[in-house]
Amino acid sequence: MVGVRRVRIAVTGAGGFLGRRLVRTLLDRGRIGADGPVVTRVVAFDRVAPDLPEDPRLQVRTGDVADAAAVAPALAEADLVFHLAAVVSAQAEADYELGMRVNLDGTRAVLEALRRTGRRPRLVFASSVAVYGGPLPDPVGDDVPLAPQSSYGAQKAMGELLVADGSRRGFVDGVSLRLPTVVVRPGRPNRAASAFASSILREPLTGRGAVCPVPPDTALYLTSPRRVVEAFLHAATLPEEALPMGRAFVLPGLTVTVAEMLAALGRVGGAAAVARVRFVPDETVARIVRGWPARFEAATARRLGFAADPDMDSILHAFVEDELGGAPA
Amino acid sequence: MVGVRRVRIAVTGAGGFLGRRLVRTLLDRGRIGADGPVVTRVVAFDRVAPDLPEDPRLQVRTGDVADAAAVAPALAEADLVFHLAAVVSAQAEADYELGMRVNLDGTRAVLEALRRTGRRPRLVFASSVAVYGGPLPDPVGDDVPLAPQSSYGAQKAMGELLVADGSRRGFVDGVSLRLPTVVVRPGRPNRAASAFASSILREPLTGRGAVCPVPPDTALYLTSPRRVVEAFLHAATLPEEALPMGRAFVLPGLTVTVAEMLAALGRVGGAAAVARVRFVPDETVARIVRGWPARFEAATARRLGFAADPDMDSILHAFVEDELGGAPA
Repeated sequence: MVGVRRVRIAVTGAGGFLGRRLVRTLLDRGRIGADGPVVTRVVAFDRVAPDLPEDPRLQVRTGDVADAAAVAPALAEADLVFHLAAVVSAQAEADYELGMRVNLDGTRAVLEALRRTGRRPRLVFASSVAVYGGPLPDPVGDDVPLAPQSSYGAQKAMGELLVADGSRRGFVDGVSLRLPTVVVRPGRPNRAASAFASSILREPLTGRGAVCPVPPDTALYLTSPRRVVEAFLHAATLPEEALPMGRAFVLPGLTVTVAEMLAALGRVGGAAAVARVRFVPDETVARIVRGWPARFEAATARRLGFAADPDMDSILHAFVEDELGGAPA
Repeated sequence: MVGVRRVRIAVTGAGGFLGRRLVRTLLDRGRIGADGPVVTRVVAFDRVAPDLPEDPRLQVRTGDVADAAAVAPALAEADLVFHLAAVVSAQAEADYELGMRVNLDGTRAVLEALRRTGRRPRLVFASSVAVYGGPLPDPVGDDVPLAPQSSYGAQKAMGELLVADGSRRGFVDGVSLRLPTVVVRPGRPNRAASAFASSILREPLTGRGAVCPVPPDTALYLTSPRRVVEAFLHAATLPEEALPMGRAFVLPGLTVTVAEMLAALGRVGGAAAVARVRFVPDETVARIVRGWPARFEAATARRLGFAADPDMDSILHAFVEDELGGAPA
C-alpha cells in the first residue's frame, strides 16, 4: 500500500453493520488516509446484496464466502482486502458447522483466492479478543498465549494462523486486528453473547426497554463502530516492516463497567433512559461474559498509532449522531 | 479411557514409521498400560495399506484422511484414536496445497467423523514443537505463545485448536502432544528439514556415508521412536481432569548438539562410523534448524509422568537393537 497512488478494494461481509459503514466511509472519503491512495473501486461482497448507496466506483457481488469459486472474482483485482465476513459468537457456538464453514472455510477461501491472484494485497482481517481465554493476567499483555473458550474464538485464532502463514509465504500482506466488543451496534440485537452491551444503550436511547443479564460491576472491553472503521483504515496503511511477528494484535479499547455505561447513558439520554434498563440475571450469558478479559495493554497497537475511544460518553454521542439524527428519543 | 475394560483403537497414518511401530506395540502388548484395558481391535488407516503383521484384531483400511467419507468408517467404533497422519515439514513447505489438505483438512475430517459418532473417544494428536518460532526464551516454558514459522507448524497449531475446541464442546476427549525431533528414524531420509539428524546416525551405523548440513555446535531437541510410542500410550491413559487447558503440551526431550550426537555415535559405532559423516554446510537447512528452539521446560508433560530419553547413547543403542538386529554394520 505504501507508495501506491490508486487502490482497488474488496470488502467481505460488506452487508454487515461494520462492513456497510466501512464501504460508505471508503466511498465518502475517496482515499485511504489524508494524502493516501485514491479509491478507484470498492467490491462489496456478501451473501445477499448489501444495502449501499449507488456509486460508480462500487461493485456489489453476492455469494458464499466459503465457496472459493464465488469469492475469487470479488478479490481478483484487489490491492487491499478487508475480510469481515463472519458468523458471530453465540451463533458459531450454537451451530458448529455454520461457524466452521463461514469463519474457517471462509477465511481459507479468501486466502486461497488471493494466493491464486499472485498480487499479494494487504489483507486486513477482523479477528476478536475472543481468541483469549482461561486464567489471564490483568491487564492482558501482547505476549499472552491464545486459549479460545468458544468455537468463534478458535475459528478466529485459526484465521490468524492462516493470515500469518500466508504473509510469511508471501501471497498476502496480512494484518489481523483483534476487535474489542463493538458498541453501540445499530438495529436489532444480534446473536453474539455481547449483544446486551449494545441493547442496554441503544434501546433506552430509542425509547424502548432493555434487559441487562449481567451485574452492574461487570467490566467490558469496548470500542465504537467509528473507532473500528478508523482502525481498519489505519491498518491498511501500516508499513509491513512495522508489523509484529504473527501479524495479529489487540486493538486499544475502553474498559468500562455496566454501571459506568449506564452512568454515561444517564448523562447523554437522561434519567428516563436509564430507567428503561432492567437487570434480569442470565447465568449463561454472565458466565460467558465473565470469561472475557476486560483489560488489555494493547501495546503493539498503540505503538502502531491505534487509539481507544476517549470515553464512554463520546461513544454514546457518536451513536446519537450517526444513527439517531443527533438526538435521543 | 479410565475404568474401561476393553478398547477399540484407530490409528491414522498407520503406515508411517511411528504409526507402524505404535500398531505393533499395541498388538504385542495387548493392553494399554500394565493393567489397563485390553485391546480388542486396532484399525490401521493410511493412504496405502501399511506393512503390518497378520493379526485377528487388526483391520487395515485405506483412504484419504482428508476425505471425511473415507476416514469415518475407520473411526466409527473407536474408543481411542491416535491421529498421526501428516505431511512432514519440508514437504508441507514445498507443496502448500498438499500440506493444507493432509495436515489441516485431515485433522478436521478426523474430528468431524468423531463428532458424528457421538462416542467421545480419547484422541491423541501428534503435534510438533514446530508450532513455536520467532524470538523465544531459553528454555521455552509451557506458557510461551505459539508462533509457527512454517506451514507445517501453522497447520499443527490449527489442528491443536480444533482438538481443544472439540474437547471443550465435548465430542472428543483430546490430547495434543508436541513432539521433539524423532531420531533415529529407520529407512530412507524423509522430506523433513530435520532429516539429517537421523541420517548422520543411521547411515554410519549401517556402513554408509552421511552429510551434515549444520555446524557441530547446532543444538537439537530430540526424542527416540521408543519414547514417542510410550508417550502416545501414556497420553491414552491420562485422566481428563489432569490435562491442561488447550490440551496441548511439549513432550520432554533431550537437548543435544550435533557434536554430542557424533560423540555418542563414536561410542556405539566406533571411530569408523564417525568418519563416515562429512560436514557440507547448507545455509537453507541451517537457517530453518536455527529457528527451532532446542531447550524446553516441558513442565506440564513431566508433571503428567512423561519423561525424556536418559541420554544420546541409549537412543543409539535402541536403534541398533530395534532396527539393526543388535549390532551396527
